[in-house]
Amino acid sequence: MEIERKFLVRNDDFKAQAVKVRHITQGYLVADGVRTVRIRLCEEEACITVKGKTQAGGFSRHEYEYALPLEDAKEMLSLCLPGYIRKTRYCIPYEGHMWEVDVFEGLHHGLVIAEVELQREDEDVALPDWIDHEVTGDKRYYNSFIAGIQR
Amino acid sequence: MEIERKFLVRNDDFKAQAVKVRHITQGYLVADGVRTVRIRLCEEEACITVKGKTQAGGFSRHEYEYALPLEDAKEMLSLCLPGYIRKTRYCIPYEGHMWEVDVFEGLHHGLVIAEVELQREDEDVALPDWIDHEVTGDKRYYNSFIAGIQR
Repeated sequence: MEIERKFLVRNDDFKAQAVKVRHITQGYLVADGVRTVRIRLCEEEACITVKGKTQAGGFSRHEYEYALPLEDAKEMLSLCLPGYIRKTRYCIPYEGHMWEVDVFEGLHHGLVIAEVELQREDEDVALPDWIDHEVTGDKRYYNSFIAGIQR
Repeated sequence: MEIERKFLVRNDDFKAQAVKVRHITQGYLVADGVRTVRIRLCEEEACITVKGKTQAGGFSRHEYEYALPLEDAKEMLSLCLPGYIRKTRYCIPYEGHMWEVDVFEGLHHGLVIAEVELQREDEDVALPDWIDHEVTGDKRYYNSFIAGIQR
């Protein structure tokens, strides 16, 4: 079960606090609002992820993720629906949570989204100074929507 | 690369020649004619398979298959598109090739399809007596079409 909250960011201050920076390319074999299958390349690693629908009224969904051979994943990207995502991910630890801030590239240049993964939906999260307002559940900020696949 | 030919069968003689018999349940996360993602449970094993489109004029396509934890696969079946397939697969060695004969159950009861996997498209294959006419490339015999997903 993936439990995740999303936020916009105010400024670039998160970059100086990042403990890890990675380049990600991802595509979708399907993202129809009920089920998502994503192929992700992250530096020299790759994975396939199957996700269910976000539970009504909440921000949890079933997620299944498996490592892939890098060469297979590169080939599988060409089977994906048109509309890849390229982004740089900054990982920032803050008061007991690991924040991931995605800076989108290419067509989506200028878009920056911060995510934090939780153990429980009602878990308290301290927000760093650079966090702006919350966009959890707003489908315009789903990666599959940003990619132009889910409408 | 998967290279496969499909045939209908004349009778049940293949059953007596089978060296392995397995029950299969499978569902599809997507099957839109360009890309297919299949979840398969086969006895106590499970896998996820990503397939591309059959190459024009031939009967080859890219295929990527990975083992899955059985419990994950059972859960993922519930994320699949409506229209599972249940079938019994008989494996029959014949003159250097392994034939797989699928006897469909449930809604598709009565349908029996034999498949043989090849190394090359132009490879010679000896046909067992119980083989009827070839249906390679006829999309009505794609499993995703039988499941009612691809049209």
